Amino acid sequence: MAYRTTALRIDLDHALRERIINAALARVAEGGFACLTMQALADDVGIATGSLYRHVRNKGDLASEVFALASQREVDALAVTMKAEGSPVRRLAAGVERFAARAWDSRQLAFALIAEPVDPQVDEQRLFYREAYAELFVELLHEGVALGVFRVQQINLVAACLVGAIAEALVGPLSPPARAAREAGYPAPSLIDVSQALVTFCLRAVGAQLPEEEPQS
Amino acid sequence: MAYRTTALRIDLDHALRERIINAALARVAEGGFACLTMQALADDVGIATGSLYRHVRNKGDLASEVFALASQREVDALAVTMKAEGSPVRRLAAGVERFAARAWDSRQLAFALIAEPVDPQVDEQRLFYREAYAELFVELLHEGVALGVFRVQQINLVAACLVGAIAEALVGPLSPPARAAREAGYPAPSLIDVSQALVTFCLRAVGAQLPEEEPQS
Repeated sequence: MAYRTTALRIDLDHALRERIINAALARVAEGGFACLTMQALADDVGIATGSLYRHVRNKGDLASEVFALASQREVDALAVTMKAEGSPVRRLAAGVERFAARAWDSRQLAFALIAEPVDPQVDEQRLFYREAYAELFVELLHEGVALGVFRVQQINLVAACLVGAIAEALVGPLSPPARAAREAGYPAPSLIDVSQALVTFCLRAVGAQLPEEEPQS
Repeated sequence: MAYRTTALRIDLDHALRERIINAALARVAEGGFACLTMQALADDVGIATGSLYRHVRNKGDLASEVFALASQREVDALAVTMKAEGSPVRRLAAGVERFAARAWDSRQLAFALIAEPVDPQVDEQRLFYREAYAELFVELLHEGVALGVFRVQQINLVAACLVGAIAEALVGPLSPPARAAREAGYPAPSLIDVSQALVTFCLRAVGAQLPEEEPQS
């Protein structure tokens, strides 16, 4: 009996913790890490703040966990696209397009993950996940170089460049000021514009022949 | 007399504040923002911690001021190179080389500025200075496009990509783990390797004809 009670208790704790993390992720997706306060989160979940602290040590840990969860989803989604069938050129383009489209669909979350000023603990995670993205590019670059469709010598460095370029290009269009300008009716680049410019930038940067470009004479 | 005393007092305060900021910058250049504690800084300057707080409100403000001072120097140095005489292609290459060389000369400081996990206040400054770097590239890209030596449509976006690519490429080689590996004798890319790969990446990405590359056939 004692064992069953304990097992049930663990299941309940586990389910509650999952609810907490999902509610925290929803907060960040809605208003960035700035909106992730323990009080508001406890209200969302419908528990007392004191109970919340029994499941999450502090705000830094929580932000860090939410960041890791959301980032891992992005890395996984990008991995599926970049490891699919097709030429490395096509897969690099598709990966960039997918990353941009997912960021566009969930701008506040994307900005929070890429650039929102936040706890050093989350900055640590940013460095870690940028490595994870870079590894996907390293793999693809090796393939493309072996096939002679990419002209790259320092593969690790160029992979980092791609990660930096893509992230930085999205910071502007995704940022709160850009959103405010758009909502106020100022012209802003569309997803198609941003996505195409990024794909062109990345393909050229790795020395790939662009589909629409004739050789220079 | 009262006026003179006040003026002298202001001069002395100003001189002391300058010493404090320079000592703080030296600490960050030596060990990153992690080494910037109020106690250690007061010791460096030779004043009591209490006196230090009369000149600097708190550690976040101090880190933010040091970040801005060091970043502005980098932006100014880059501006000199990128606004010098010569073709936009040459100036883009020279700018990238200069940025990489300065970072290499002062690795701990460069890593602190680019990527060290730190207070949100410093993250805010990072976003601001990345805009300042991007503006330099925007200007150069406009020139190069007008002359037909760069093939870029979304100039703002591509400028952001360049800033992101350069910063991210340097994070790896400048990071504390990379430094530890180098000091332990593991092979690591040299400044020349990193710099050349970055220049090639950036020139290709903006559609410039590389000096050493024959047109593709």
